[in-house]
Amino acid sequence: MTTVGILGGGQLARMLALAGAPLGLRFLVLDPAADACAGQVAPLQVGGFADPAALEAFAAEVDVATFDFENVPAEAAQRLAERVPVYPDPRALAVAQDRLAEKRLFRELGIPVPAFAAVDSREGLERALDEVGVPCILKTRRLGYDGKGQFRIRQRGDADAAWAALGAQAGTVGLILEAFVPFDGEISVVAVRGRDGGFRAWPVTCNWHVDGVLSASLAPAPVDAALAEAAVAHARRLAGHLDYVGVFALELFHRDGRLLANEMAPRVHNSGHWTIEGAETSQFENHLRAVLGLPLGSTAMRGHACMLNWVGQMPGAVPVLAEAGGHWHDYGKQARAGRKVGHATLRADDAQALAAALERVGQALDRTEQVAPAVAALRAL
Amino acid sequence: MTTVGILGGGQLARMLALAGAPLGLRFLVLDPAADACAGQVAPLQVGGFADPAALEAFAAEVDVATFDFENVPAEAAQRLAERVPVYPDPRALAVAQDRLAEKRLFRELGIPVPAFAAVDSREGLERALDEVGVPCILKTRRLGYDGKGQFRIRQRGDADAAWAALGAQAGTVGLILEAFVPFDGEISVVAVRGRDGGFRAWPVTCNWHVDGVLSASLAPAPVDAALAEAAVAHARRLAGHLDYVGVFALELFHRDGRLLANEMAPRVHNSGHWTIEGAETSQFENHLRAVLGLPLGSTAMRGHACMLNWVGQMPGAVPVLAEAGGHWHDYGKQARAGRKVGHATLRADDAQALAAALERVGQALDRTEQVAPAVAALRAL
Ligand SMILES: Nc1ncnc2c1ncn2[C@@H]1O[C@H](COP(=O)(O)OP(=O)(O)OP(=O)(O)O)[C@@H](O)[C@H]1O
Ligand SMILES: Nc1ncnc2c1ncn2[C@@H]1O[C@H](COP(=O)(O)OP(=O)(O)OP(=O)(O)O)[C@@H](O)[C@H]1O
Repeated sequence: MTTVGILGGGQLARMLALAGAPLGLRFLVLDPAADACAGQVAPLQVGGFADPAALEAFAAEVDVATFDFENVPAEAAQRLAERVPVYPDPRALAVAQDRLAEKRLFRELGIPVPAFAAVDSREGLERALDEVGVPCILKTRRLGYDGKGQFRIRQRGDADAAWAALGAQAGTVGLILEAFVPFDGEISVVAVRGRDGGFRAWPVTCNWHVDGVLSASLAPAPVDAALAEAAVAHARRLAGHLDYVGVFALELFHRDGRLLANEMAPRVHNSGHWTIEGAETSQFENHLRAVLGLPLGSTAMRGHACMLNWVGQMPGAVPVLAEAGGHWHDYGKQARAGRKVGHATLRADDAQALAAALERVGQALDRTEQVAPAVAALRAL
Repeated sequence: MTTVGILGGGQLARMLALAGAPLGLRFLVLDPAADACAGQVAPLQVGGFADPAALEAFAAEVDVATFDFENVPAEAAQRLAERVPVYPDPRALAVAQDRLAEKRLFRELGIPVPAFAAVDSREGLERALDEVGVPCILKTRRLGYDGKGQFRIRQRGDADAAWAALGAQAGTVGLILEAFVPFDGEISVVAVRGRDGGFRAWPVTCNWHVDGVLSASLAPAPVDAALAEAAVAHARRLAGHLDYVGVFALELFHRDGRLLANEMAPRVHNSGHWTIEGAETSQFENHLRAVLGLPLGSTAMRGHACMLNWVGQMPGAVPVLAEAGGHWHDYGKQARAGRKVGHATLRADDAQALAAALERVGQALDRTEQVAPAVAALRAL
C-alpha cells in the first residue's frame, strides 16, 4: 500500500485523490487550512509548508510526495526531498516559481518569449521600459497566480502608478517587466513525463481568461496543426531539460501564427480539467502514474470538450447535467469572490453539437459571455 | 450540501462515493466492519444494519439513503425510510431479496423465467422435482450471493445430498428449485430509472461466471440486436412496475435466441463497472443522479469494453496500465480467497484491438482462461 503525500489541499489535490483511489493509493494532504477541500476525500494534516515539524510528521507518513500548490517554499520542498522522493523535483519547481528564471530558461531552450527585463528599482523600471517598450506588464517574479501581482502599463506615464502598486515587492519577491502581447489567442500544452523520460501530451487546449483568471478552455484548440505541434515540441524540450516527472502545463500566446511562451505550471493544470471526461486517461491519473513510475496512460481524446470555470460561487447544476455530455465538478468549497469553486465540462463527438450545448447552458445559467468565445471558435470550424 | 447515506461499505459504496464527490456530495457509509473499504474514501459509521440505535444515528446524519448491499434486512430499510427518503424503495429491495417473489413477479410481468417451484420440506423437494425436472438447482430464497447457497441436482438421486446441504435453511431463508438452463450465454441489462420515471439502459453486457462468481463482462454484448432490445424492454417494465429509483441490473440467460430471466440486483452491479471508463456517464454517477432527482446522464458508450474481475488477490497492474485503454481498480481490500478485491477495464474503439489487448494482458498475468471467452466473442464479430 502506497501513500502519496500532497502539499496543498485545494481542488487539484482533491481531484488527484479521487483519481488515485482506483489505483489503490492512499493519500495524505498537507494544508494550513483545516477546511481545505481535499480533506473531504482524503486524510488532511493541518500544517504550514514552512513548518519543519509539520513537514517532518508529513514525511514520516508518506512514501512519495507531490504538489497541488506550486508556491510551496523551495527550501521546504528541498527539505522534504531529503526524506522521501518528491516529484516533480524541487529544482523544477524553483524554476517555475520565478518568472525571470523561467523566461531565461525558455530563451535558452529556444522557446520564444515576449521581450522581458528584470526590475529591481524605480530607475531599473525606466531602463526596463526602454528595453521592453510599451504597452507592457509589470509582474511580481514570485507568488503570482490568477493574474494577481500584475500591473498593466499602457504608456510610459503609467510607470509611477505601477511602481506605487508593486514597487514595495522589488526587494522581496522581485519584479519583471514583460512586453504586452496583443495575442490572437492563448493555448496551453498539458503534458506528462514519466520517470523513464517517456513523454505524452494531451491535445493542445485553447484558453480564455477574464480578469487574469481562466474562464473557459476548449480542446482540441482550433489552431493550425503546425502551431500545435510546435507548442508540444517546446513543452517536450522543456520537460526533458528539467528532467521533469509528472504533469505540467506550458501556457503560450499565439499571434500571426507565431508562438510566445508565457509561463509553465509545474503541476496538474486548470486547462487540463477536461481530460477527466474527455481523454482516455485524465491529467490527474497520469500525474500519479508518472510519480509512481507506472506506465503512462493514453492521452487520446475523442470529439470536443469545453471546460467552464465556476468562479466565486456555483451556478445551478441542472442545465449542465441535462446535456448528454454534461459533467459537473463541485469542489466542496465555500463561495467567495474570485475563488475557483468548481467547473463543468461539456463533451460532444461533434463540434457543432458542442457549440449548441454551450449556448443552451450559457442561456440557462445567464453566462452567455462566458461561453461566447468557445461557441464562436467552434462555429468557425 | 447534501449527505448521502450508504448502507454497506464495500467496493460499490466506494465507487459511489468517488463518483459522487464531483457532484459536491458528502457521504456517510454504514457498515459492521471497521475496515470496510469505502471507509478509505468516505466517512464510515461502524454499526450493524439491524441495530436500531446505529440506524437512528445514521439517519440523523444523512439527507437521503441508498444501498451498496442488497441484503440489508427489509425491516431495517423500512425503519430508515420512515426517517429519510430511501432509494430504491425498500419494497423493491424486498422483492429482489427473495428469489421466489422475484421469479413470480417476472412471470406476472411477462418476463420469461426458467421453471421453478418453492420448496419447504423434503417431500416438497420431491414434488418440486416432479414439476421442474432435472437437471435443476436448489437455491436459498434469500441471502444468496456469488453463487453461495446453491446446490446443483443433475439427477433425481442427488436430492438427498441437496437436502443435506440446504434443507436446514428451508425454515429460515426458504428454498426454491429452479430448472438448470443450458444457456448459450448470460447477459445483463444495467439500467437507471429516475424519480420522474425517466429510464435509460447502458448497452447490454455479456457476462461469464466462474464458480458462481462474475469473472468477465463484455459490452456491448455480442448478441442479436432484437434479443438485446427485448432484454431492455423487460428491464424497463420491471422498473416501472416497482416504481424503481436508481440503478439496477437484470440478469438473464439466453438460449436459442430466447431469453430467460435469472435475477434482479437492486443496486449498481458488477457487470456495469465498465461504464466508469466506457460510457459517457457511469452507473455510479447515474445512480446518485437518480437518487437525488437530478437529470440522468447519457448511457452512450463508445467502442468496446471488457471488465475483468480480480477475485482473491490483486494481480500486477503494469500489464493493464501499459495498454492504451487499460484502467485499474484496486478496492483497497485485504486479499482473501473468493473475495472481489478489484477489477480492470480494457477499452478500445475497435473490437479486434480489444481482443489483442485482452490476449496480451491474459498472457502477462497468466490469466489466459479468464480472458478467453471475451477474446473468442470479439474474434467472432
Ligand atoms: N505579457 C502578456 N501579454 C498579454 N497578456 C498577458 C501577458 N501576461 C499575462 N497576460 C494575461 O493575464 C493572464 C494571467 O497571466 P499570468 O499567466 O502571467 O498570471 P498568473 O497569475 O501566473 O496566472 P495563472 O494562475 O493562470 O498561472 C494570461 O493568461 C493573459 O491572459
Ligand atoms: N438456473 C440456472 N441455470 C444455469 N445456471 C445457473 C442457474 N442459476 C444460476 N446459474 C449460474 O450461477 C451463477 C450465479 O447464480 P445466481 O445469479 O443465482 O447467484 P447469486 O448468488 O445471486 O449471484 P450474484 O452474486 O452474481 O447475484 C449464474 O450467473 C449462472 O452462471
